This record gives sequence, C-alpha cells and structure tokens, in this order.
Amino acid sequence: MSFVLDTIVDIESIASLPGFEHVDTDVIDGLLAESARFFNEVFAPTNEIGDKEGSVFTNGAVTTPDAFKPAWEKLVGAGWTAVTGHEDFGGHGFPAAVGAAVSEMMTASNLAFSLAPMLTGSAITLLERHGSEELRDAYLAKLIACEWTGTMVLTEPEAGSDVGALRTKATPNEDGTWAVSGTKIFITWGDHDLVDNIIHLVLARTPGAPPGTKGISMFLIPKFILNEDGTPGDRNDVEVVSIEHKLGIHASPTCVLSFERATGYLIGEENQGMRYMFTMMNKARLEVGLEGLAIAERAYQHAAAYAKVRMQGIAPGADAVGPIIDHADIRRMLMTMKAYTEAMRSLIYDAMADDDRHLNGTTEEDRRAAGDRLALLTPIAKAWCTDRGVEVASIGVQLHGGMGFIEETGAAQFYRDARITPIYEGTNGIQAIDLVMRKIPMNDGAVVGSYLDEIDVLDAELEAAGDALSSIRGPLADATHAVRTATETLNASDVRTRMAGATPYLEMIGTLCGAYYLARQALAALPDAGSDPWMAAKVTTARFYATNLLPRIHGYADAATGGDELLFSVGDDLIGSSR
Amino acid sequence: MSFVLDTIVDIESIASLPGFEHVDTDVIDGLLAESARFFNEVFAPTNEIGDKEGSVFTNGAVTTPDAFKPAWEKLVGAGWTAVTGHEDFGGHGFPAAVGAAVSEMMTASNLAFSLAPMLTGSAITLLERHGSEELRDAYLAKLIACEWTGTMVLTEPEAGSDVGALRTKATPNEDGTWAVSGTKIFITWGDHDLVDNIIHLVLARTPGAPPGTKGISMFLIPKFILNEDGTPGDRNDVEVVSIEHKLGIHASPTCVLSFERATGYLIGEENQGMRYMFTMMNKARLEVGLEGLAIAERAYQHAAAYAKVRMQGIAPGADAVGPIIDHADIRRMLMTMKAYTEAMRSLIYDAMADDDRHLNGTTEEDRRAAGDRLALLTPIAKAWCTDRGVEVASIGVQLHGGMGFIEETGAAQFYRDARITPIYEGTNGIQAIDLVMRKIPMNDGAVVGSYLDEIDVLDAELEAAGDALSSIRGPLADATHAVRTATETLNASDVRTRMAGATPYLEMIGTLCGAYYLARQALAALPDAGSDPWMAAKVTTARFYATNLLPRIHGYADAATGGDELLFSVGDDLIGSSR
Repeated sequence: MSFVLDTIVDIESIASLPGFEHVDTDVIDGLLAESARFFNEVFAPTNEIGDKEGSVFTNGAVTTPDAFKPAWEKLVGAGWTAVTGHEDFGGHGFPAAVGAAVSEMMTASNLAFSLAPMLTGSAITLLERHGSEELRDAYLAKLIACEWTGTMVLTEPEAGSDVGALRTKATPNEDGTWAVSGTKIFITWGDHDLVDNIIHLVLARTPGAPPGTKGISMFLIPKFILNEDGTPGDRNDVEVVSIEHKLGIHASPTCVLSFERATGYLIGEENQGMRYMFTMMNKARLEVGLEGLAIAERAYQHAAAYAKVRMQGIAPGADAVGPIIDHADIRRMLMTMKAYTEAMRSLIYDAMADDDRHLNGTTEEDRRAAGDRLALLTPIAKAWCTDRGVEVASIGVQLHGGMGFIEETGAAQFYRDARITPIYEGTNGIQAIDLVMRKIPMNDGAVVGSYLDEIDVLDAELEAAGDALSSIRGPLADATHAVRTATETLNASDVRTRMAGATPYLEMIGTLCGAYYLARQALAALPDAGSDPWMAAKVTTARFYATNLLPRIHGYADAATGGDELLFSVGDDLIGSSR
Repeated sequence: MSFVLDTIVDIESIASLPGFEHVDTDVIDGLLAESARFFNEVFAPTNEIGDKEGSVFTNGAVTTPDAFKPAWEKLVGAGWTAVTGHEDFGGHGFPAAVGAAVSEMMTASNLAFSLAPMLTGSAITLLERHGSEELRDAYLAKLIACEWTGTMVLTEPEAGSDVGALRTKATPNEDGTWAVSGTKIFITWGDHDLVDNIIHLVLARTPGAPPGTKGISMFLIPKFILNEDGTPGDRNDVEVVSIEHKLGIHASPTCVLSFERATGYLIGEENQGMRYMFTMMNKARLEVGLEGLAIAERAYQHAAAYAKVRMQGIAPGADAVGPIIDHADIRRMLMTMKAYTEAMRSLIYDAMADDDRHLNGTTEEDRRAAGDRLALLTPIAKAWCTDRGVEVASIGVQLHGGMGFIEETGAAQFYRDARITPIYEGTNGIQAIDLVMRKIPMNDGAVVGSYLDEIDVLDAELEAAGDALSSIRGPLADATHAVRTATETLNASDVRTRMAGATPYLEMIGTLCGAYYLARQALAALPDAGSDPWMAAKVTTARFYATNLLPRIHGYADAATGGDELLFSVGDDLIGSSR
C-alpha cells in the first residue's frame, strides 16, 4: 500500500495540497501500520461468524451478530471511520487516497460489516456538499464519528437501474418539513442495533415534479427525530418490513423499508436529487470498486496460505511430496490473483487521488482535469475491479480443490460475498454504458485520449530500461493501440453500436489500466530489483501480467466495435426456449 | 437436442452399430419427448426444495429431503436410470449419446439429485467391464434399475488429486473376501434413505502392494451384505462419520465414511484398481462436463424468462419502458449464454458418441480411433464445459440485477451448485495436465492433429456457403492455426513448459471446439435458414460465437507456450504476504 501511495499516487504531492497540511508520509505510514493491526485483530475475526449467524430480523427490527457490537465500539472509539472526515466536524482530514488504504483493510477484514461505515461515508459526502448549515450541524459530527450511521435509499421494486421510475412521494408539511411515503427495497444496513440513530437519505417526488430523473428530490429522514438538544427523540414513521435472504454478505442487513408520512428534511433544492445523488454515487462506485480489490486481496492471502501448507503430489524435478505451491498450475493461479490484485490497488488509489486533486487542487485547471480523469476512471474502477474480485475469489475456491467447496474452509464465503459487487451501486452493465455514452465522449474524446497518452509515454521509459522490461513494452504498446482504435471507433459510432459494445470495451480498457499501473510499478521497482527480492517481485508481476493477462484484450476488440446486429437477430421467442 | 444428435452425432450411424438394432430416430424422439415431460414435471420442482432443506445427518444416517422420495420412486419406476444399461441386466441398451440427452435433462432439473444415478452409472460401468460374473449377477440388475445405488470411494484426507497416496488397507479373509479398513472423504451420496442397499466401490491397498498408484486394488463393499437369496442382509462395517456443509448441491450428501474391517469383494485382479478406476473415471469426467452444460442450460432458461418479463428502462429507439431483453447489454449476456450452452451440448454429445463407437464400432480400427478421439476430448469436455457452466451461471446472476443476489430468485443456486463441477472428478487443473502430458502427445500428436484437420476441412464448406457464413470462416481458420501452433510448440517442449501452459492451452482448444461445433451446426442449418427462424438462429449463434467469443483464444496463446520462468520467479515468502 505504501509503495502504491509513493509510486502511483505520488502522495507527497497530494499531501502538499491545501487542506492536507497536517499529512506527511511518516504520519501515513504510522496510520497504515496501526490500521493493519486494528483490522487484523478486531475486524477480521468477525467475518466468518458474521456469515454464519447473519443479521436477523425479529419483531420489526434487525439484530446484528453478537461479535459485531464490541468490534463496532472499538472501531468508533478508535476513530477509524473518521479518517477522511472533515476536521470541522471531528474528522481527521486525511486525503481520500489514504482513506482508501484504510478502507481496503476494513473491507478485506469483513466486507459485510464494512458496508455500514461505507454507506455512512456516502451520506457524509452528500451532507458536506449539499446539506444546509442546519442539517450539517445537526448530523455531520455524529455521522463522521459513526455514532449514527447513514443509508442510501434509492431503489423501489419497479425502479432499479432506472431510478427515474421511482414513485415515493413527499408532500410539504406546514412547518417546513416534508411527509414522505413509499416503499423502498435493497436498503443496505437499513436497520440495525449498533447505533442509536440511523439517517436515511431518501429519493422521492414532490407534488408537480417533472417525470423521470428530473423530478426527483432528496430528503434526510432520521429513524428517530432529533430533540431540541440534538439527541434522538420520537420514532419516525419508518418501518422495516423484512430483510433479504442473500447469497452472501449475510451480516449486512438488506432491508425493505416502508415510509408512511415519515418526517423528512429537504436536501438542497427540489428536483435536484439525482444531481446530488451522483456526487455521492460516483464516490460510492469507487468504494465498490475497492470492495473488488479488498475481497481479492483476502481471497489471495487465504489461498496462498493454503498452498504453502497443503501437501499433495510430486512436482517435476522434485523427489518427494511437496506443498501444492510447487506446482506450476497452482503457481499460475496465485500469480494471476497477485497480479490482478496489485493492478486493482493502483487503479483504485489513483482514482481516489484524483478525487483529492479534484476537491483540493490549487488551480481551477488542476481541479477540472482531475475531476474529468476521475469521471473517466470511476466506471472502469467499479466494474473492472468487481469483475476481477469475483474472478479472483473463484480462483481461490478452485485452488483449494475439494476443500474449497466446504464452507468451513472460508474460500466459499469470499466467492459468495464478492458476487454482489458487480451488481450494486449501478450494475457493471450500467457502468459500461456510462463509460461509452458519457465518459469516453467527454471533451470530444480528449479525456480518454490524454489517459491513453499517459500510457504511451511509458514506452520510452520501458525502452530505456532495456531487456529487463522488454517483455512488457511490446504487449503494452499493442494493447494501447487496440484500445485507442476501439475508443475512436466507438466515439464515431451510433448509439446502438456503442451500447452493444459497452461491456467488452470496458473489459478492454480495464485490462489495459491494470497493465499500465503494473508497468509503472515495475519502472519504479527496477532500480532496486537487483538487491531487493520484493522489488524484483514487482517487476516479475508486471511482466507476468503483460504477457499472460494483458493479451486477453485482443479477444474483446471485435465484440466491442462489431455493432448490435447479431445481438438482435434472434427473436425473443427463440431465446431460452426450444421452439 | 435432436438437432445435435442428427447433425453432430450422426445418430443414424450410431444406431446402425451392432447392439443398437432396436434404436431408431423415431424411438429416440419419443424417448426425448417423454424424458422432457418427466424431468420437467417430477424432478425440476424438487431443485429449490432440495437446496433449502438439504440432506441431513442424524443418528449416524443421512435423510434426504421429503420431496425426493416420491420423485425417486417415479424415476426408478419409469426406468429413466436404465436408459443406457445393458439389456442382459434389465437396461434399455440405448447409445451413450442418447443417454447424454436424458442425463442432461435430469441434471438440469436437479443437479444434486442427479448425482445419485450418475455415480450409480459409474459403478455399473465398472462392474460391467471388470467385475466377475458372480458380482455382475449379484449386483448389476439392481444397480441398473437404481433399486440400489453405487458410490465411488477414492479420496482420503491426504490423498486427493494424488490418489496414489491413499492408505486404506485390505487384508484377505479366509473365505476369499477381504477386510477393508480406512477413512474416506468426499463420498457423494455415500449414505441416504432412498434405497435399501448402497454399493461402495472402494480403492485400498493389499498387503505387500507396491507404493503409489501401482499398488491400488478395488473392492466392492455393500452397505448390507447380501443373503444367500441375494437380498440385503447384515449391516456391513461401514459407518457415516459426518456429512459436509457445502457451498452448493446441498441435497447431495457428501459423506465421510469409516470402514472398520468391512467385508469387501475384490474387483478383477489385485493392484489393477487404478486402471479399472480410469475406465470409469473417464466416463464420469464426461458426465461432469455434461453437468456444466446442464447447469448452463438451466441458468440460461431462468435468465431468459426473467429478461422477458422484467420491465426496466427505455431502449434506444423505443418510446416506452420495455422488458430488459430489449437492451443490447442484456442481449449480449443472453447470446453468450446461448452460444456457450449450444457449443457445449455438441461437444459432450459428440464425445459420448465416440464412447459408443469405441465400444460398439464394427472394426478394430474404428473402435481404436474413436477411443483415441474420446481420450483427447474427455479432459476438454470436463474442464472447458464446467468452467463455462460457472461462467454462464454467473452471467445468470448478473442479468437478474439485485434480484440475482436474493436466494429466492433461484439464480444464485445455479451459481453455487455449478462451482463444484470444475473441482470434482479431477480438478480442471488435473484435466489440463492430462491433456498436455498424455493426450496431445498421443500417437506423436496424430490424434489431436486429426481433430484439428476435421476443423480445417470445414473451411471449404464455409467458403462454399458464401456470404452467409463468411464471418465465421476467417476467425475459425485463425483460431485453428493458433491452436495447431500452440499444440506443436507444447509437444516439442519440456515437461515444465507443458505443465505451465496446461490451463491456458486447454482454454484455447476448448474455445476452438465450441466454434467448430457451432460452425457445423450453422452449415447444417443454413439451407433452411431462409424459411425457418429456428434454423436462422443457429446460423446467428455460430456467427456470434465466431466473432464475439472465439477471438478470446488469442489472449491465451502466449500464456500457453511461454514456459514457467515467470511462475517461479517470485519466492514463496512474497506470495500472499507483504514482506
């Protein structure tokens, strides 16, 4: 993590931005070391218990696993949820790129549990940027401290990917508050017993609002309405109807919530809800991409530990039974897990650093450029990393052989938990469409063009590095060329062609991003590779990725630009049925 | 299924082989129609119940879900388990290629349940080919009728992929039977309450046996020792220790069995157990490949049905909210599921037909050639189809969006159930090693060479078909060339290079097989494609595969032949840990 912060993020330059005066690399190193200890000791042991016990719904309320309560108290007590929070409200004001490292540890320790602070973070972002001073004063400090938690309340049974179809209604009360009524589904940590208030951020329509996404407003609806002194008072009219029985993240209660003229407070202005939601959602999408990274790292560590102790078979050249890590095919699995995980880490942290530059950059131009780059990277980070998270978790199951299918081994939980990440916070299909419809056309293709230019710039550095990195140079140049060609083709194509190629195109550019970041790692590590095996491993990992994984992008090029004729030639009646 | 039997399998030529005189296409069509009705009505409804209730272990015995007992009685009563059984023992003597279609329906209906007849089929194969007349007379008819079921008892805690490490002991009794002692794990349907006897086929070592796989013998050990009149009598000394808590196939009891001087009967000769096991295991590997196909078909049907009714979003060019099947990205998922599933079906049925030609061919040369081709296709069919089964089931979850993660939807069960198939009956890594170490070197590469020649022969037919199939011709020729090159490179390489490239090579040739069979389907369908939308869909599916999926093989070529240097350059201490 420190290596990525140094070489990819250039954390010193981030720490020099206004607002981060108190941050330096010594402080960061100390923070990461302490964070590692905390999440390893306090959070990681709750992961399997949380999966087995799950959060349960009884008598209209959600109860979390017993082991969660003391862990939560320690988390809040130590201030781990406040790392990036604003200092005015009790946060520690670290850059998002540093917060990402802490988040990765928390998420890898227990994905289901980490969602409570993660969604609270989204609520904080929204309130910080769009809430009135009154609302900020009343709620922000409590949320940053995680004494209260936040939720994102968007989805309805008929409004999932198409948020604009939502029907929850808000009507004005005489006292300036609003009465909100409707049923919402898939509300993560929508209710639980860890805190004494839960702050829902709810999308709803006001009377006379235009149809679709242009008529959506956002309301803050607390579970308990605050007293004059700011403490939680009367119960608001929000009921938990049920929680879902899910494939994974069993400890994260996914609630159906019913609002019956619940008291709500308008965030910002009417009909601006979708705009506000997107400022939060973009950050949340990055956080979900980070979940892909985190679950991959956990699955990788779990598999590597097993591969070192599980004795089976005699490897070529060996004269006795050895650990399975000695077998080339197992080694290929581990190197694949390692390479993808390290590539993802760089991509996520780099995008988080763009968020820092976007918010704290010293010039308008810096802020704008970072914001554009972040906008481009967000759907890639979300979709590519979560798809890789599922892939790495699946490899982890496979590496364990028959034991991988037994729940007690633990590998299966990662495979189940990981599967939600390509779905929520905008399915990966939605991310791909966002990428081809909104992101690569930005500034007439200049944003994506300049990102590809960054990659091309490496070519001279790779050439200068000589033989050591020559196996990276050719594949990287070929891949960048292929992505540039596909990008230009799509940007010149009609809507139908872009929509049809969205997912394979995202797969291409994501795979290229991975190679790009690992190549930069290799360049940074090369000077010390002769004397330091850890640095040499960075070089090897980049070479492995460039020669074994990167070429896969050529398998997606035709699909990315080939149009939609073949997708729509078979009639609906012949899909999924015989005649 | 009929189309594949006609166009790929050439079922008429199989039906004309000695032993299949009673089989013709009318009989087969009737059989398939009746089978479809039966498994749809009787077996399919037990799938979700079986997953929820699971088979449970209480008081030393396994109890299956209530719904299984009546379904099992109907299955046995209707003779569906006896389709391919030998007529001398009450079977219906159908070719394996026809049995595959029935098996696919049974497996798609309920994978966990289907494993009981599937493993019984393996026991039947073993007894038919290697059992003494006495053992065949005592057990075969009951097994073919599924009045009793069979198990395969190989694995021990320290002997998984490395079967040769097993330690279970067999010592001779004075009456010619053997006393078998040891603990075995992962015994599928090792105990249950559906039948009144269970016939275990157990690998063990006799006194003085050579080490490793050369010193393994096979024993038949019934749960209840037969009385003089052939009915089950005294309980044998086989105990169920426990059953596993698994990721999927919850209704299939995976047992730990303890044998304590259990009475066993030697199959064939001492120390030939591995050879016998492989005659069974090869067939069982094909059956597991079929499981990949079957779960993919079920997941595909499930997803397609949802895509047609789930209303969400307005597709480009549409003026109102429509079903999600109208969206290109969803359509891409469905076409991918469809293309893979149809490719797998051809591969599996074709390999099964080779089994028929191998056993019933009219000349020694025919039988040998079919046996060789079957040997080549077996690891490909097992590994490629089960990897695709997992992939298709995962796409199925994704297509459902948030609902896919909710267990009640059903898509998640396919994702969980499918995950065992790349693992058991020899992990896919083991299959890949079998392919590169034993199969592609067969007859100095002539077996794989002649299979690739079959594909090249299509080129002239595709050319003759003109524009309609021109988009298949180029990609297929390129892919065949790439696979031929990789094959020749690997066959000329040392052991370490072959082991390192095994998995990516298998991925390449499997992906090529899929394109080959779909191209043959397209050629067969083309004459009717103008008038019959179903035939036109065959052509479209082949074109989709050739242009959207087949190019992926080029992403694996460097990994397949690049050697193992990069796999072994990073020290064990730097894999899965920081420093």
